[in-house]
Amino acid sequence: MSNSTANLKWTAYLSGEIHSDWRQRIINAAREADLPFTWLSPITNHGDSDDCGAVILGEENNAFWHDHKGAKINAIRTRTYIEKADVVVVRFGDKYRQWNAAFDAGYASALGKAIITLHDPELAHALKEVDGTALATAQTPEQVVEILKYVSTGVLKR
Amino acid sequence: MSNSTANLKWTAYLSGEIHSDWRQRIINAAREADLPFTWLSPITNHGDSDDCGAVILGEENNAFWHDHKGAKINAIRTRTYIEKADVVVVRFGDKYRQWNAAFDAGYASALGKAIITLHDPELAHALKEVDGTALATAQTPEQVVEILKYVSTGVLKR
Amino acid sequence: MSNSTANLKWTAYLSGEIHSDWRQRIINAAREADLPFTWLSPITNHGDSDDCGAVILGEENNAFWHDHKGAKINAIRTRTYIEKADVVVVRFGDKYRQWNAAFDAGYASALGKAIITLHDPELAHALKEVDGTALATAQTPEQVVEILKYVSTGVLKR
Amino acid sequence: MSNSTANLKWTAYLSGEIHSDWRQRIINAAREADLPFTWLSPITNHGDSDDCGAVILGEENNAFWHDHKGAKINAIRTRTYIEKADVVVVRFGDKYRQWNAAFDAGYASALGKAIITLHDPELAHALKEVDGTALATAQTPEQVVEILKYVSTGVLKR
Amino acid sequence: MSNSTANLKWTAYLSGEIHSDWRQRIINAAREADLPFTWLSPITNHGDSDDCGAVILGEENNAFWHDHKGAKINAIRTRTYIEKADVVVVRFGDKYRQWNAAFDAGYASALGKAIITLHDPELAHALKEVDGTALATAQTPEQVVEILKYVSTGVLKR
Amino acid sequence: MSNSTANLKWTAYLSGEIHSDWRQRIINAAREADLPFTWLSPITNHGDSDDCGAVILGEENNAFWHDHKGAKINAIRTRTYIEKADVVVVRFGDKYRQWNAAFDAGYASALGKAIITLHDPELAHALKEVDGTALATAQTPEQVVEILKYVSTGVLKR
Amino acid sequence: MSNSTANLKWTAYLSGEIHSDWRQRIINAAREADLPFTWLSPITNHGDSDDCGAVILGEENNAFWHDHKGAKINAIRTRTYIEKADVVVVRFGDKYRQWNAAFDAGYASALGKAIITLHDPELAHALKEVDGTALATAQTPEQVVEILKYVSTGVLKR
Amino acid sequence: MSNSTANLKWTAYLSGEIHSDWRQRIINAAREADLPFTWLSPITNHGDSDDCGAVILGEENNAFWHDHKGAKINAIRTRTYIEKADVVVVRFGDKYRQWNAAFDAGYASALGKAIITLHDPELAHALKEVDGTALATAQTPEQVVEILKYVSTGVLKR
Repeated sequence: MSNSTANLKWTAYLSGEIHSDWRQRIINAAREADLPFTWLSPITNHGDSDDCGAVILGEENNAFWHDHKGAKINAIRTRTYIEKADVVVVRFGDKYRQWNAAFDAGYASALGKAIITLHDPELAHALKEVDGTALATAQTPEQVVEILKYVSTGVLKR
Repeated sequence: MSNSTANLKWTAYLSGEIHSDWRQRIINAAREADLPFTWLSPITNHGDSDDCGAVILGEENNAFWHDHKGAKINAIRTRTYIEKADVVVVRFGDKYRQWNAAFDAGYASALGKAIITLHDPELAHALKEVDGTALATAQTPEQVVEILKYVSTGVLKR
Repeated sequence: MSNSTANLKWTAYLSGEIHSDWRQRIINAAREADLPFTWLSPITNHGDSDDCGAVILGEENNAFWHDHKGAKINAIRTRTYIEKADVVVVRFGDKYRQWNAAFDAGYASALGKAIITLHDPELAHALKEVDGTALATAQTPEQVVEILKYVSTGVLKR
Repeated sequence: MSNSTANLKWTAYLSGEIHSDWRQRIINAAREADLPFTWLSPITNHGDSDDCGAVILGEENNAFWHDHKGAKINAIRTRTYIEKADVVVVRFGDKYRQWNAAFDAGYASALGKAIITLHDPELAHALKEVDGTALATAQTPEQVVEILKYVSTGVLKR
Repeated sequence: MSNSTANLKWTAYLSGEIHSDWRQRIINAAREADLPFTWLSPITNHGDSDDCGAVILGEENNAFWHDHKGAKINAIRTRTYIEKADVVVVRFGDKYRQWNAAFDAGYASALGKAIITLHDPELAHALKEVDGTALATAQTPEQVVEILKYVSTGVLKR
Repeated sequence: MSNSTANLKWTAYLSGEIHSDWRQRIINAAREADLPFTWLSPITNHGDSDDCGAVILGEENNAFWHDHKGAKINAIRTRTYIEKADVVVVRFGDKYRQWNAAFDAGYASALGKAIITLHDPELAHALKEVDGTALATAQTPEQVVEILKYVSTGVLKR
Repeated sequence: MSNSTANLKWTAYLSGEIHSDWRQRIINAAREADLPFTWLSPITNHGDSDDCGAVILGEENNAFWHDHKGAKINAIRTRTYIEKADVVVVRFGDKYRQWNAAFDAGYASALGKAIITLHDPELAHALKEVDGTALATAQTPEQVVEILKYVSTGVLKR
Repeated sequence: MSNSTANLKWTAYLSGEIHSDWRQRIINAAREADLPFTWLSPITNHGDSDDCGAVILGEENNAFWHDHKGAKINAIRTRTYIEKADVVVVRFGDKYRQWNAAFDAGYASALGKAIITLHDPELAHALKEVDGTALATAQTPEQVVEILKYVSTGVLKR
């Protein structure tokens, strides 16, 4: 039946870890499978993400305000994209505190977005509140793609 | 007058029974009549709908969690589609408990969607609360198509 | 300045009186002026609007339920269109009670839509609450078109 | 069972006709039955309602602006009360155009309020769109009280 | 720590099955434990719930409209109560189709209410979509009370 | 990574001062950089903005109502555009009171829009509440363009 | 009729000018008339309002961040109060730029609050957009009190 | 002026770290100062918070589901409290990943709640996105109390 109904265009926001290639693996696999998705992501260049406020609007002596100016400019992108997304995939890696990823998950949850978390099993206990609000918890980018393929096209690879 | 104004593009979500060809009858008739509708539906493959969680994310020993993982993945599609729909058609057949169809109707109702129910007259008493929130209660897919034709194009077949 | 910025696509819903040619006068003048509007309107065939419920879903002995079935089917169109509209033009003529026009105005007002009322000065006292919520009160379809031209293209005919 | 659960406090807004004693009949009967309701109503003094803007803020030469100033001040009360109400009772009498009553019904409907209409059967055809959005259509104030008693206390007088 | 912060007043709506004493068991146990809850429930008298429309507003020849009038009057109570509730407990028994219970769950879910389902394990597969949206699935009224005690007072009986 | 994901189409509303060329500088620079933006702005012809109500709907003797009619017609454009915008840039110049610019900022803030303020440092103290709600405060149109380039394309000019 | 219905408790937020006694005149007159209002206002101590951030959280070398910290702490009060208010009275005096008052008006307008503006006629042209969204424009605190008396108690002093 | 207006009752939710006495320090100091606050907090007993699902609803073999059941029951409290709060204070300590605290901040932010973060300066860089959405960032519980005193009573201790 699914192939007789139009496949709607979906939008996914890929939040979280920026030090591995998980986004590219999802996007590449999804494109090969021709999934009807628009992909959105935060700025993934760590240095630019830290310094954008100071670079564009002027240096700050105080590290707090240096960070503050940058964080707010990044929020222009992040909030706009989360609001436009149907699905928010949130990736947690094994390094850094990644509080912005958890923040994005909370923000998306309050807006009623479908959330998929992506992390290793060792992080499951620490992430139980975030996983508790997700509609799926995956361990690999490939699982995320299978979920997105299934929900958007109806094809389940057994 | 209606033919002098642009026909807006409509979106309909077809919720409920997956064991008869009612969706196809609606879509085929609507396409013949060239109605300006995008059609959305849940996964209608019963087995895939039951097993998608376990197939993609791994088997569960416990039947409750097997079901739970699948139900939540299906919800990624279902909720996204209901939110994008202008009209939600909810079909109740004579078999199974179909609580997910009634759940969809409640979800759509709280979002203010236009609801059309589709069922045999024998089910009317049991469905009175659901019908009470619908803007139309039809007995055949062809009646649904006539309603959608009338509201979208202004043509009423007498 | 206005001609250097993209003209957004607007949507207008034309609510109310169905016994004069005011809709056509607005749409024709707007098309001549090439205004960027999609036009939506209720069913303007009085007989179809009254009978659609009974014609599609079956006759009713009781006039109340005959009307009820029809009114609800018309609401599928009306509510969907008001929700999609940026501007709701509500026309009151000199005949009939036209409670549905006032109802549409209230519905649009609560949704925060921009409302333009269109009626003769003699009706102004009776319509003071509705006019009080409107962003403009016009007496002729041509004034409505001038308003829509000005707000959408920035051109004011002096 | 109903008498074992706390009776919540309800709020009702009584909209519409101001030339008969229907509000008093509802309130008196409800008080006799000790219903847990707070009663809200628009200004029911016709002259004050018309002139409040000019009396408080200064006379206007132009009748339109005289009405406009008054209508908006009345809206401070009307909108605030409708937003605070659980149930909106809308009464249509046999005189005047009463567009403000229909406007209130539309406003309440878009906010998802429970609406009860109250009018004679002769008005049913003209009010079919308003009745179509109501959860009950009564012909007498006493019926309204019976409905409110039943939904708030669970007692149905057979 | 929890006993140093004020216990907020909670409101719970008890939806679903009306043929067993599950509501009374929850309310009695909660009162013994002095839980800070206001309890709301639908009309639990089956006959009154079916006939209220006809009894108050007049008989209907047609069973569909008899049911329709009653279902809508019950909706005045049901929707108002669900909107006021913090927690919605939905009970499914082993008899009847109980589509109104599933409808309530969907309605509550779209409003973002915390949902607790209550049913026997045999119903779990048929209720997987409803359970998938619940924050807890209990098998006994006593478990529901323990959950409500824990979330409202912080006391967990081990 | 950013260049591997689709650049979403953005919409910006340029609110405030109409006596310098700041809008054109932003739009020109953004077009040269090929930024994916649709640009919206208020009517920037001062005379038309003041007189539109009287010109289209008829002269008023009273200056207050002359202004009132015009302000409301301009609001049809302003509110519609702010609601459609992802980003609202609010420019304050050194002349006039510009209360409408601050009003737009408040309106946009309550809707959760991303706000960028643009003004000279001398105005910073008087604008501290408005800047406090903005995600960036720029001093030149070129800084605004750099922010919009960075958030929409991920390119940061160091 | 109005005296037969309960007077609801109202909440008013008094925004804007802090250099004259207009708030006290409103509150005193309202208390004499026993109006059912809770009165909310911003911090009206100019120095405290400017310095609160630095005093509580530590000094800043940079004036911009000094202001920023203070403005945001004041926003905790301002936004919370506007959201709790039924009516927002916004006062504009003849000194200072008062952009925060216009910002509050825009914020309140987007939330659908009833707005009353209070200012001298000389400011009317500059405030036309703000007045255009208000439900009343008063010139004296006494007029504001008369409006609030009328809408809350139904008494109109002629 | 502030002491002439009623102090509204405020509600604060204290989210985050459960291994130090910061909540008690805030509540004690606020009570001494007689601040008009109701205090809400998550379950702060670590063991109960982890095990509540298994204790009430039955053991799980699989650690993921053990956590999942508990996390969702805790969410009944957490979400209800955040939604009822005017101010959400989020505390980050130096141990554990505390993703639930960041999640709460994101959830509160999307709901438009006033957020105050509380953490040591060393965490500022890692928390820059969360601080970027907060209306104040404090380093000690006493600073939080001073903020809450100032915004609720208008008293600033210099």
